[in-house]
Amino acid sequence: MRDSIGIGMAGFGTVGTGVFKNLRANGDLIAQRLGARFEIRRIAVRDASKARDPEAPKELFTTDTDLLLNDPDIQVVIELMGGIEIPLAFVKKAIAAGKIVITGNKALLAEHGQEIFQLAREHRVPVFYEAAVAGGIPIIKVVREAFVGNHFESIHGILNGTCNYILTRMTETGMDYAPALAEARDLGYAEADPTLDINGWDAAHKTIILASLAYGFWVPPENIFVEGIETVTAADIRFANELGYRIKLLATIKSAPGEVVEVRVCPTLIPQGHVLASVNGVFNAVALKGDVVGETLFYGRGAGQDPTSSSVLGDLAEAACALKSSRFCYGFTSHNLYGNCQPTDKTISKYYLRLSVKDQPGVLAEIAGILGAAEIGILSVIQPETEDENAVSLVLMLHDAPFGAMRKSVEVLAKLPCVRDTPALLHVESFS
Amino acid sequence: MRDSIGIGMAGFGTVGTGVFKNLRANGDLIAQRLGARFEIRRIAVRDASKARDPEAPKELFTTDTDLLLNDPDIQVVIELMGGIEIPLAFVKKAIAAGKIVITGNKALLAEHGQEIFQLAREHRVPVFYEAAVAGGIPIIKVVREAFVGNHFESIHGILNGTCNYILTRMTETGMDYAPALAEARDLGYAEADPTLDINGWDAAHKTIILASLAYGFWVPPENIFVEGIETVTAADIRFANELGYRIKLLATIKSAPGEVVEVRVCPTLIPQGHVLASVNGVFNAVALKGDVVGETLFYGRGAGQDPTSSSVLGDLAEAACALKSSRFCYGFTSHNLYGNCQPTDKTISKYYLRLSVKDQPGVLAEIAGILGAAEIGILSVIQPETEDENAVSLVLMLHDAPFGAMRKSVEVLAKLPCVRDTPALLHVESFS
Repeated sequence: MRDSIGIGMAGFGTVGTGVFKNLRANGDLIAQRLGARFEIRRIAVRDASKARDPEAPKELFTTDTDLLLNDPDIQVVIELMGGIEIPLAFVKKAIAAGKIVITGNKALLAEHGQEIFQLAREHRVPVFYEAAVAGGIPIIKVVREAFVGNHFESIHGILNGTCNYILTRMTETGMDYAPALAEARDLGYAEADPTLDINGWDAAHKTIILASLAYGFWVPPENIFVEGIETVTAADIRFANELGYRIKLLATIKSAPGEVVEVRVCPTLIPQGHVLASVNGVFNAVALKGDVVGETLFYGRGAGQDPTSSSVLGDLAEAACALKSSRFCYGFTSHNLYGNCQPTDKTISKYYLRLSVKDQPGVLAEIAGILGAAEIGILSVIQPETEDENAVSLVLMLHDAPFGAMRKSVEVLAKLPCVRDTPALLHVESFS
Repeated sequence: MRDSIGIGMAGFGTVGTGVFKNLRANGDLIAQRLGARFEIRRIAVRDASKARDPEAPKELFTTDTDLLLNDPDIQVVIELMGGIEIPLAFVKKAIAAGKIVITGNKALLAEHGQEIFQLAREHRVPVFYEAAVAGGIPIIKVVREAFVGNHFESIHGILNGTCNYILTRMTETGMDYAPALAEARDLGYAEADPTLDINGWDAAHKTIILASLAYGFWVPPENIFVEGIETVTAADIRFANELGYRIKLLATIKSAPGEVVEVRVCPTLIPQGHVLASVNGVFNAVALKGDVVGETLFYGRGAGQDPTSSSVLGDLAEAACALKSSRFCYGFTSHNLYGNCQPTDKTISKYYLRLSVKDQPGVLAEIAGILGAAEIGILSVIQPETEDENAVSLVLMLHDAPFGAMRKSVEVLAKLPCVRDTPALLHVESFS
């Protein structure tokens, strides 16, 4: 029971260094628990001369990824390179060479998962990716294995720590978006270029992976609605609070009538009493509702060297099991349960609509008339006090309506002479 | 990929019926996801003539468990009988017969786990038990597999829905223990005989299993401190609230200096801001801190037909994988990381101490003197207003101290002429 399993690692950034460090620290423990010892035999990097963790022997490093693939003593490769095209080529070659693949690359899987898993199936090589979604939270294992007996009614996730930190700070302090982003940068919670975080696409990549796994078909990125947090204002957060909600960048995946799946990632109002509303700072959480298990929630750190390393170590254990067994057990998209995403315009939601209007008689009647003509019902209206009579805020909570009809109505409203600035439209999730 | 796997089920109560029902409802889905179809081939019950789920064919039922064990077309047995001695004999015979075993029997594993897993190792037969701990929450899989690369710094759990419902209602309404228990009974959240729930031992059995899995040795039931919720009063809940805490029946498992493990299950004060304080009603949750992954939380329904069935279905998937592989991967107690429990008297905690005292000068000085002599520091004192001057409440929050010294001091305090009634002593968990 003391097999040695050879690892080749491609990429030695934050997560790669963490895997190296934690495997050194906890390697004995893992060997005792698992009956297998992992040995990092080679590390491929772009610049072999760069200063590294002094504990990592210089002779491990190479700039030639083929050395990992051609080494018969390497059974598992860990892809932590970043980017898409280079890792895609590497992963495909690794699968063809019969290496078990572990990756934390969410963009790679969201955009090329279908191709990668098709190839993996042909070569009977498992590909593990726990580190790609929600950092240290083992949500892939939960969806794939623990809840294998469930139809998923809904999956809601807070999947980007940077956005959640920014929105949490805006909520706690009343500060605007820009200073909150600056603070996140100062603390290292936002990267120098935080575009993919704040425009929602980092969370969207994770959402695509989760939805694809849960529903058994590859969700096309172009079929989901993605909106970032850049346009969320301190006023929206304040108004939402008055109405009993928190604003979170929320991933929503749910089965809709007609065996289609609604998938969106956008700033969303969540009732303050819901447990996801209490997930603050850089933490991530996934709330999952299955037809058998009922409501569940999984919470933890969604990023960072150590939490993400923990997921890679878990995947290494999976790899060790796969090496001992004749074939890999859990399928991925083989069940193909629901074959389609609901087109964005047909997805149904409640909405929060903030308009900046001239304070004059008849404005509300005009707005209500336009919404009524589109069969969009008004749940409540608040008109917070403002000093400027040329631009007072009008906040409407709206009934369930198709997103397409909602967007069209907002376009009409935006053109009214009494409406100033661009209207702010946000989804509202009532978890019903 | 359309293998059929034969199941023999022993016991057809709430959970057994749920497994049957959900396997019928979601069998196609599971077959698509897993490439294996499960067929219940025989169900052993005590009384074959009893009315059952009309969908369960009569010819499946037998009173002879040996029919399950002798049937070569049954590869997996699910033990859901209840009790200890009869299931123990059945499980041992099943292992010896080479059947994969799934059980939801926490008392069985907590008391005979060592023997069962030793036998399972000898016969190279896996035993799965996700349904034994925290109902639908896949905490066994998380500890055993996903977090295999972590040393566990602490595991805190709310593991009994009956107790949590009672304490939640006492907190929400101010009602006393007895009416809250009656309400739980009326709603079906407490059994006719709720002894094992309210005396803490149902949670303790689950705690023993979790601690044994996390630390790699069988935790002896006699080495842990277990206290039920019967003695928690409405006053304690009110005082705790004033001090910023909630009272929960909390399982605490943590590594202590000297490579020992502290294990206790008792009513415990939790800071209101901690996420476990918000786990209400019949829900369960486990907060787990690993040296690599950091802080995590897992939340869901801890009991009931469907959530527990979900865990059995997950274990069936594990069984299907194990049948395809040459040997079972994850060990159980093989790593034997820390070989011992901390003796109860040496465990360290903060405490809440409520005394009923005569309202006379010098009482606090006398009490403080006794605590000081035992080197137990006082963090704060509150003396809530009461009408009866012969028995006013005095509530003390006490610093970290060994439980043995604390208990002895309480015995001394109880004998003071100024102290009325039995002092109430509760643990306080600060999650530091």
